[in-house]
Amino acid sequence: MEAVARSLRETGRVPVNVKFLIEGEEESGGEHIERYIPAHPSELQADAAVICDTAMFAPGLPTLITGLRGIVYGEIRVQGARGDLHSGDYGGAAPNAVEAAAQIFCALKDRDGHIHIPGLYDRVQPATAVELAAWKRLPFDAEDYRANQVGASALAGEAEISIFERIWARPTLELHGIRGGFTGDGAKTVIPARALAKISLRLVPDQRPGEVVGQLRDAISQATPRGVTASFELLHAAPASAVDPKNPFIQKAADALRKVFGREAVYIRCGGSIPIVGLFAEALGIPSVLMGFGLPDDNIHAPNEKLSLENYSRGIEAVTEYLQSLAI
Amino acid sequence: MEAVARSLRETGRVPVNVKFLIEGEEESGGEHIERYIPAHPSELQADAAVICDTAMFAPGLPTLITGLRGIVYGEIRVQGARGDLHSGDYGGAAPNAVEAAAQIFCALKDRDGHIHIPGLYDRVQPATAVELAAWKRLPFDAEDYRANQVGASALAGEAEISIFERIWARPTLELHGIRGGFTGDGAKTVIPARALAKISLRLVPDQRPGEVVGQLRDAISQATPRGVTASFELLHAAPASAVDPKNPFIQKAADALRKVFGREAVYIRCGGSIPIVGLFAEALGIPSVLMGFGLPDDNIHAPNEKLSLENYSRGIEAVTEYLQSLAI
Repeated sequence: MEAVARSLRETGRVPVNVKFLIEGEEESGGEHIERYIPAHPSELQADAAVICDTAMFAPGLPTLITGLRGIVYGEIRVQGARGDLHSGDYGGAAPNAVEAAAQIFCALKDRDGHIHIPGLYDRVQPATAVELAAWKRLPFDAEDYRANQVGASALAGEAEISIFERIWARPTLELHGIRGGFTGDGAKTVIPARALAKISLRLVPDQRPGEVVGQLRDAISQATPRGVTASFELLHAAPASAVDPKNPFIQKAADALRKVFGREAVYIRCGGSIPIVGLFAEALGIPSVLMGFGLPDDNIHAPNEKLSLENYSRGIEAVTEYLQSLAI
Repeated sequence: MEAVARSLRETGRVPVNVKFLIEGEEESGGEHIERYIPAHPSELQADAAVICDTAMFAPGLPTLITGLRGIVYGEIRVQGARGDLHSGDYGGAAPNAVEAAAQIFCALKDRDGHIHIPGLYDRVQPATAVELAAWKRLPFDAEDYRANQVGASALAGEAEISIFERIWARPTLELHGIRGGFTGDGAKTVIPARALAKISLRLVPDQRPGEVVGQLRDAISQATPRGVTASFELLHAAPASAVDPKNPFIQKAADALRKVFGREAVYIRCGGSIPIVGLFAEALGIPSVLMGFGLPDDNIHAPNEKLSLENYSRGIEAVTEYLQSLAI
């Protein structure tokens, strides 16, 4: 903070050129920025991008992200009978679209978190030995994670694979909700004619979103029960991305974080998707420095989302320190 | 119509005593009338009940119902993590309550309509030979039923069992909808912490609702995946009921229907539930005459529900004729 404060006081300007690229669509797919960036390479020219949309591994532990999962998000749309039918009159003969949506999803993912989409795992690479060794050194108590971060009676997913690999380095499939039928209070004995299952896959490096969508469509087609039709409507997709921790822009970020937080930064991956990282690499040829200041208990995308005020201040200091260090 | 018109003109009164029992709760479980009837046996004393809440098998074909399915309606309530979680951060480790609801349901009912609730079929009796023979004589085209009544590419349910048995004489299980997670437009990558699946079973004679609820709870418990808890909340239940077609009140109804419609009435069952039929039998010891004037394409409990105006008029005539015949 002092460095830039001095610099600003002495020169009246920040020590390096900074371009801000602001968008408000990222959580709903970021459709427009995907077209904007490739169309404006000269205006956006830069040495590196700094993105603060990630979390620290633990309070007080500065964190740099070296990989992000990609995503394929869409809807399984199921059509059964022409219209909703009464379960007294037609129960036993009419197809039920909400049931079919559930059946299709359960065919795609089993209770152990394995995804049954033929070909999906073909390009999945295991985490490197260096990463696995680094992740083993992280301060982590699986029982505390289960009880206090997740807050469930047991963890789900591929039990034979370590938790960090499951959330950072493995593709996953989630059912976000099923629209259709009757979900209000009380009782209504409808056989739903239509259902829409919101699903997403998280992808890991080397998986190709377009290929995955094709594999998913084939698997849905195979899993569709008789009496209904089902299609997959893609809402958005982005590949996973990886950054090289040895990149000098990342190394300088690690130095700045160490100075501000007084601890060595850890290098981890993030299970979420920040599609613009891949886009910066592809369209502008620049690395992204993912130095974020969230915390694991921020409840992101959920009620009572928060940001730690202490991290907000230290984040400002760290970014200031980082910009100053880039000018030297 | 003439008979009663004459009677009313001649005497100024209907030919038999008629008591009206009106309730508006039947579609949401009929909780209050279930308590009212056993508490007022002398006010409700009667020789028979006439209920016009059923449909004719086909236009112009007068129909008497000799059996109704019972029902168990309730909610599977699933709780996973403490709160909703982000599928990027926790996908691969956190339990997903909507997925668990789908998994539980799919464990209870397979794609062929077979219900996997241990003990559920133990008391199920096949339809009698007399019934099966009568049902075979009904004017019925399975292909027309599929294409025009159901309007689906194929029928669902137990393929090895005839359609009439499936909808009238077999227990069924339906998923009416799953509440929870994100079902709006667009994309939200939530791992739902809670889900609520609305389900119902249709029961056949001899099945006991209380016993079925116990079997269902056991089956849900067995089918619950790790990381979530699931319970079944009963909303309402009623046993199936059967009436003897040889009962004189039913026979007189058949006569009245034949006079008005000019055709012999057919005897079928109904897959729906009219819980008060069982209650009249049990609490008042009286048979119910189920002479209804709906049609198969009335879209009951669905958008654009209708009642045929012709059947409305003929229904008035038939009930009038019936009341007159009872006075003779």
